Amino acid sequence: MKVVIIGAGIAGLSIGWRLAQAGCAVTVLERARPGGAATWASGGMIAATAERPGMSADENRFALHSAALWPAFASEIEKASGRPVHYARVGTLIAALTAEGYTELSAGITGETRMLTPPETLALEPLLRSDIAGGLWAPGDAMVDNRLVGLALAFAFVGAGGTLNINEAVVRLEVAGNAIAGARTPFALHTADAYVIAAGAWSGEIAGLPPEAIPATLPVKGEMIALLPPGGQALPSRLVWGNSVYLIPRRDRLFIGATVSKEGFDTSTTDAARLFLHSHACALMPDLAKWEIVEQWAGLRPGTPDGLPLIGETAIPGLFVASGQFRNGVLFAPAIAKAICDLVAGQKRLPELEAFRPGRFGPAHLAGGHAVG
Amino acid sequence: MKVVIIGAGIAGLSIGWRLAQAGCAVTVLERARPGGAATWASGGMIAATAERPGMSADENRFALHSAALWPAFASEIEKASGRPVHYARVGTLIAALTAEGYTELSAGITGETRMLTPPETLALEPLLRSDIAGGLWAPGDAMVDNRLVGLALAFAFVGAGGTLNINEAVVRLEVAGNAIAGARTPFALHTADAYVIAAGAWSGEIAGLPPEAIPATLPVKGEMIALLPPGGQALPSRLVWGNSVYLIPRRDRLFIGATVSKEGFDTSTTDAARLFLHSHACALMPDLAKWEIVEQWAGLRPGTPDGLPLIGETAIPGLFVASGQFRNGVLFAPAIAKAICDLVAGQKRLPELEAFRPGRFGPAHLAGGHAVG
Repeated sequence: MKVVIIGAGIAGLSIGWRLAQAGCAVTVLERARPGGAATWASGGMIAATAERPGMSADENRFALHSAALWPAFASEIEKASGRPVHYARVGTLIAALTAEGYTELSAGITGETRMLTPPETLALEPLLRSDIAGGLWAPGDAMVDNRLVGLALAFAFVGAGGTLNINEAVVRLEVAGNAIAGARTPFALHTADAYVIAAGAWSGEIAGLPPEAIPATLPVKGEMIALLPPGGQALPSRLVWGNSVYLIPRRDRLFIGATVSKEGFDTSTTDAARLFLHSHACALMPDLAKWEIVEQWAGLRPGTPDGLPLIGETAIPGLFVASGQFRNGVLFAPAIAKAICDLVAGQKRLPELEAFRPGRFGPAHLAGGHAVG
Repeated sequence: MKVVIIGAGIAGLSIGWRLAQAGCAVTVLERARPGGAATWASGGMIAATAERPGMSADENRFALHSAALWPAFASEIEKASGRPVHYARVGTLIAALTAEGYTELSAGITGETRMLTPPETLALEPLLRSDIAGGLWAPGDAMVDNRLVGLALAFAFVGAGGTLNINEAVVRLEVAGNAIAGARTPFALHTADAYVIAAGAWSGEIAGLPPEAIPATLPVKGEMIALLPPGGQALPSRLVWGNSVYLIPRRDRLFIGATVSKEGFDTSTTDAARLFLHSHACALMPDLAKWEIVEQWAGLRPGTPDGLPLIGETAIPGLFVASGQFRNGVLFAPAIAKAICDLVAGQKRLPELEAFRPGRFGPAHLAGGHAVG
């Protein structure tokens, strides 16, 4: 069976790798470089528990399922590629700055989380401001070095026999009747038995599809910064959320994210975002004011009208979508790879994906009025 | 023998690949991604003949030697990586807009080039303005898809047993007496028998070295744009130089380069550069005014005080430099790989590299006053 995948981000490469392992002849077509867009720009959080309050029951079930797949997925990538990806189950500490915030957090408690008193919170993360009101501790959350994952997956995919064409954008999907006749790039018409759009924020931009088959994605820009601690000072050891930012210890530096704005496909960095992220992080951890800002970058999340991902077959048989992950592209990767692999290679029906059906909006989404969760 | 190479651009990966093939245990340390900086931003020209007027005799000899290595080098990369790099000997046409320009070109004629009359010039490249004064034809020049070369070399290098650490910047070279004790990154101290700095425009930025061993590089920014022809219109089929720009047919689009400015490490794109490149290209080929500008990007060339590259051992035994290629990083890659491999693994003396000795400036270059050729 031949499969063409559009996009060599974490989704496209994970799917391609699984399909290649299952014996498919897979070509991934990538307009720039592997793992180079949102996969590179993300924070690499695998925070199914911390993300829970913003998720529907369906999405949360999928998130927990995917988080459970991650440890073996990471080991397998490392083994197949010979490259480290630094998966670590460090947990998320959600810090409450006020008594009201603490009460609100308490309402979201589950079997996997527990509330912490101020001293417990400070014991877990001494950099937090000393008058912290407490926190919620989600020990099951994890992270991975997303920048390393992209290249490692490229090696794993090619090692499994996949073909990775970089710098080759799909400009058009050729439709004949109710089937895809090929993915057209400037250099070739790539034909296959199945096609998967895994092009992140650009998933809705491919010409040629009838309205009902166009993935309902829109780009949601996010900016991040990274701080370097002065010599000798330790990084936080957990994912820390609070005061409208999240903090991610990434090897030698602290990532702080992320802004959310809808500005089309612009990925320039702004003074406003840097100030927002820095001031909010410093209000949470006063010592950070002495740390140096060493990086700032922006990426585009694939948003959808209802904030849920797009995973499954489109109105055109044989055309699948794996997009709309919004801020959960890293978290969802192994579950999406498994789901699309089952759908494409196994032709199974997967009732648990019903809420993520790509065609659930109808063509109306094209008239505008996008919103993200 | 253990070798650490700093930088996974075309130079570092080519050297690493050759050394790994020669049996060395090679680690390439890359602060971002393979082939991601100047290697990605360049135009991929292998234009030893067209570049000749700007080169010294030593540099031209080296350029012709490297250009002659390219066909086999490209084939070997493709074979080792299983990835195409699209080497093509398309030739360079240098167009003269005026009679004075034509006379000037004629002065530079060599055995490998010939002058063309206006009709011959237009026959070779019909997109040129019809009142062209003539041209110089250098049929031996070639090009390669530099964006593809970076990833292909990464696969070739890893396939030959090399270790490629991405997102791991060397922050310091530890010096003990007159030897390198290790390359320090935020995560490890990498020790080796030999070290190679192939960090492009950043080669002079690594802390720890005594002044006499710091590579005398400075960043020289270049901006480029790419135009897409309207449906059906053919690209130029040659490299075309003229009117202060060069034009490179790159698969479906036309690259136009490049500005030259010294602004530190800034890589933002500017309206001024876009207008300069576009207007100069349109004056050369009027039809281009109807083509769409689809890309604009900037990169940093590694310049040096005398415009010649830095290839060889530094004042510290066992510390080598392969940098300062200015605009010839792609052209020089196979010759640099061979030279550094001979020096490092073979411990040979290479008299033909005397003009490129990294220590030729002494520490005075650090006081400023950089210039590039």
